[in-house]
Amino acid sequence: MTNDIQDKVTAALLVIGDEILSGRTKDKNIGYIAEYLTAIGIDLREVRVVSDDEGAIIEAVNALRARNSYLFTTGGIGPTHDDITADCIAKALGVGISHDPRAVAMLKERYANPEDLNEARLRMARIPDGADLIENPISKAPGFMVANVIVMAGVPAIMQAMLEGVTPKLKTGKTISSVSIDSGGLPEGAYATGLGEVQKAHPGVIIGSYPHFDGQRFINQIVLRSRDEALLDQAKTAVAALITQLKSANL
Amino acid sequence: MTNDIQDKVTAALLVIGDEILSGRTKDKNIGYIAEYLTAIGIDLREVRVVSDDEGAIIEAVNALRARNSYLFTTGGIGPTHDDITADCIAKALGVGISHDPRAVAMLKERYANPEDLNEARLRMARIPDGADLIENPISKAPGFMVANVIVMAGVPAIMQAMLEGVTPKLKTGKTISSVSIDSGGLPEGAYATGLGEVQKAHPGVIIGSYPHFDGQRFINQIVLRSRDEALLDQAKTAVAALITQLKSANL
Repeated sequence: MTNDIQDKVTAALLVIGDEILSGRTKDKNIGYIAEYLTAIGIDLREVRVVSDDEGAIIEAVNALRARNSYLFTTGGIGPTHDDITADCIAKALGVGISHDPRAVAMLKERYANPEDLNEARLRMARIPDGADLIENPISKAPGFMVANVIVMAGVPAIMQAMLEGVTPKLKTGKTISSVSIDSGGLPEGAYATGLGEVQKAHPGVIIGSYPHFDGQRFINQIVLRSRDEALLDQAKTAVAALITQLKSANL
Repeated sequence: MTNDIQDKVTAALLVIGDEILSGRTKDKNIGYIAEYLTAIGIDLREVRVVSDDEGAIIEAVNALRARNSYLFTTGGIGPTHDDITADCIAKALGVGISHDPRAVAMLKERYANPEDLNEARLRMARIPDGADLIENPISKAPGFMVANVIVMAGVPAIMQAMLEGVTPKLKTGKTISSVSIDSGGLPEGAYATGLGEVQKAHPGVIIGSYPHFDGQRFINQIVLRSRDEALLDQAKTAVAALITQLKSANL
């Protein structure tokens, strides 16, 4: 879909974790982040899920950060040996990494007893040089933003708080407006040709058709999206007219 | 995680669709496919989600099919203008694409009346040269397998039927066994160092620690995975001993 709109702010998301790829844990972050970014005017362009493997993480980080305004990551910032995200980000960016005094101070709020702040927990204070920290109101160990990479926890409640926390630091574009039109029982094949013509006539609007199967039959939604309300309205009128015409022809 | 096991069969998954990236539709296929492939002995190595964009689809198809035994795709094989997967697969593989008589015959089962099998619906019979078809028991329009690429619908019920249908054609590896050990209330930071040592001592087993936050506190599961039952048992004994030791030290 080519749809040239200026001032676009784009993002990619990298989900890090063996447990997602094995199917043991069902990801709940992709859909949440997609909806959140769309709402604040950032276009999520691509998502990748990779395992807890240094080479895979670094390759994905460098591919995705280079071609998007922002790269968000989830997972791999805990205290255990399989949490290697912070070190991989530092390697990918070619910057140093060490215990960050601000992050250590945050951990001390949680682990007041010095012997509780052991070496493993201190790993959560390892932050790449030059990063801004992102507060974690739930378990204190912070996320961080370094260059255009935003590193968040994998636990959904913590990720959501971090996303909220980092939002004021992000540039955002004009939000995309969308309208959804139910096909009113018309099958996709009945309106596909007409809808393709409407799409061609309205290049400033992205039109998609999304079938949902309820176990018995398909319920189809036609979704129109644009940053230009006037163009969106014109396309909506054209789609509504198409559906009305086809339904009356079908009577 | 380096864990050299022979006869590995690997896969990547490519989810195609603007609606996933906008957050409008919450993907239900990644988790299902991950669990299914793990159960039949295929390692899902990476997942990507891309928009309905020819360049993005072709780039991802070629990157992922080259380095995995199989590439599975979901989405974009319906009759509307935004369904461009089949053509993109043909371009990525450098093969022709045309109306496949077998696929046309399948569509005729559903659209008995010749005028119902219009041009848009016939697009669903466009199949890359050399492909095997994958039956669609729900709405007839088939998926297909061409070279090592398996192309399925995005609608979960149809995708699941297609995955079942293609399974007999796939080579599969030895399944990975896994055991899960609850940390019994111990926080990750209390066992992280010891668990790292167990991981180092058991390189044939992949050990991960997965915190779940229930809104009040963390419940941690330590998951061990291996294709070798004996190694898995040894590592399990070591992790259980670690947890028991730490819990009694904590009393």
